[in-house]
Amino acid sequence: MTTNDRIAFQGELGAYSHLAAAEYFSADSPVLACTEFSDTFKAVEDSKASHAIIPVENSVAGSIVENYDLLRTSGTYISGEYSLRIQHSLIVTNTNITDEVTKVYSHPQALAQCTDFIEESLPNAEVIPYYDTAGAAQLVARNPNEKWAAIASELAAPIYDVKVLKNGIENHPNNYTRFLVIQKLPNGGLPSTTYDKTSIVYKQKNSDGLQKTLAIFSSNEINISKVELRPQVGEPWRYWVFLDLEGSSEVVTECIEQLNLAANEYKILGNYQAHQV
Amino acid sequence: MTTNDRIAFQGELGAYSHLAAAEYFSADSPVLACTEFSDTFKAVEDSKASHAIIPVENSVAGSIVENYDLLRTSGTYISGEYSLRIQHSLIVTNTNITDEVTKVYSHPQALAQCTDFIEESLPNAEVIPYYDTAGAAQLVARNPNEKWAAIASELAAPIYDVKVLKNGIENHPNNYTRFLVIQKLPNGGLPSTTYDKTSIVYKQKNSDGLQKTLAIFSSNEINISKVELRPQVGEPWRYWVFLDLEGSSEVVTECIEQLNLAANEYKILGNYQAHQV
Repeated sequence: MTTNDRIAFQGELGAYSHLAAAEYFSADSPVLACTEFSDTFKAVEDSKASHAIIPVENSVAGSIVENYDLLRTSGTYISGEYSLRIQHSLIVTNTNITDEVTKVYSHPQALAQCTDFIEESLPNAEVIPYYDTAGAAQLVARNPNEKWAAIASELAAPIYDVKVLKNGIENHPNNYTRFLVIQKLPNGGLPSTTYDKTSIVYKQKNSDGLQKTLAIFSSNEINISKVELRPQVGEPWRYWVFLDLEGSSEVVTECIEQLNLAANEYKILGNYQAHQV
Repeated sequence: MTTNDRIAFQGELGAYSHLAAAEYFSADSPVLACTEFSDTFKAVEDSKASHAIIPVENSVAGSIVENYDLLRTSGTYISGEYSLRIQHSLIVTNTNITDEVTKVYSHPQALAQCTDFIEESLPNAEVIPYYDTAGAAQLVARNPNEKWAAIASELAAPIYDVKVLKNGIENHPNNYTRFLVIQKLPNGGLPSTTYDKTSIVYKQKNSDGLQKTLAIFSSNEINISKVELRPQVGEPWRYWVFLDLEGSSEVVTECIEQLNLAANEYKILGNYQAHQV
C-alpha cells in the first residue's frame, strides 16, 4: 500500500461515510475526511486518494442528487457498492447521566429518525440540531462537565473518546444508505469487468419521451433497479437519465449499442458487484 | 367567488409561488400565504383555500421531492400545470444607489443564479443569504436608510413598496419552475376529464425491476415525460413510482388497467392540460 491508498469521504471522522469505508474496505484503512462531496471526487481525480466512498441514496430520505451530477461530470468510475445499515447511538461522556441529559445534539435528519427514543428516554433534554452527527459527538467530548449527549454512529465513540450509552435508537430499523465506491478513470477508459450491475447516464433526445430509451432495456429483459433524472441545464424538462441495470453484462452492452442511436450522449459510469441488503 | 375561493402557496407574499398563482389565475386572485408546503395541502383539504399552487421541479436545480410525497398522501388531485420563467430582479428603496449597494440579500439559490450580475454590477456589495427572496425584499423595505438591495421577483416590489432597479439579472435565462395546481378530491373521486396529460403513482412490486411497469406505457406509445422515484419506507431500494404521461386519456386508462396487475397499489393523481414552455 502506498501513501495514496486511502479512502476519501465527506464529513468528520466517525461520520456514517467513514463507517461505510471501514466496513467496505477494512477498519484500519487510511482515510481522508473532506468538507464537500466535490472534494472527495477531486481527491480521487488528483490521486490524493485511491478511492472515495459516496452516499447516493437513503432508504427513508431518498437520493443525494448532487452526487449523481458529480458522477456524470467527474473523471472517475464506479467500482463497488455498499449498503450500510444506519444504526444511531446515544453518545455521552459520563454513562451515569441517563435520565439527566440536558441537551441532545445531532444532525437534523438523525434527530428526526430518533424521535421515539428521545421522547421516551430523554424527556427533559433540549433537542439541538447540529451540522454533522460526528461533529456533535466531538462537541459532547469537548464538554465533559456538561450533561450533554450526541446521536451519532458507534464509530464516533472511540474516535472522540466518548461512550455509547445505547445503540440502535432509531425509529425504523430498516434504514439503509447506499454508497458507491469510485476510482480514477484510467487513460485507457473504463476497465473491462463482467459484473451483473452496470450504471449508465445518457442525455435524452429533445423530441422523445423517456419511454423510447427505457424500452430498450425492458425488451431485452434487463432489470432497471433505479432511475434518476437530473436537469439538462438550459433545456427545461429535458433530462440526463441515470439508470442502474441488473443483468448479464453482455446483454447490457448490446442494449447500450442500441442506446447509442436513441440517445444524444451516453457514459458508462461503472460495472460492479451489486450489494444486496 | 366565495371567501374560500383563494389560492394557497408556500412562502411570503411576492414569492415566486405567488407570482405563479397570479399568472395562472389572475393578478387579483385572493391568496393564502403558508409557511410549509404541507400547510398548502392542508388548506385545500380543509377547504380554507379552493386551490393550492406548488412547485414540483426547477429546470436547473431539479425536483422538489417533498411535494411528490404530499401529492401521494393528500386528499387532493392535480387540476392544472404552469411553468413559470424565473426572472430575478434587483430591488432597492432608492434607485440612485446603484454602485454604492453595501449589502445584497436573497435566498441562497437566487444568489447562486445571479453570480455574473453581482460580480459585474455590485462588486462592493456583501452577499448575504436570507431564508426567502420576498422576505429579503421586505427586509430592504424596512431599512430605507441603508444602501441595501434584495434579489426577488418583480411582484415583490409593489407589495413591499420598493423599486425594481434591474430585471432579468439571472445567469441563465432558461430557468423555469414547474408548478402544479391542486384541488380537494371530491367524495365521488377524481372528476372525469380527457386532457392529454395524466400523472400517476404506484407501488413497485418487491420482486420486479422497474422495467416491467414502464414497458406497459412504452408498448402502448404513451410518452413518459417524467419519472420520479420516492422510497417505500421500510423496504430499502423499493420505490413509489411517479410518472407523468402524455397521450390520449383513453389509452392511458387502458395502460392503467394493465398496471393494476403489475403494481401493488396505484393512484391517479390527476388529468390536466399540459403547459408547454
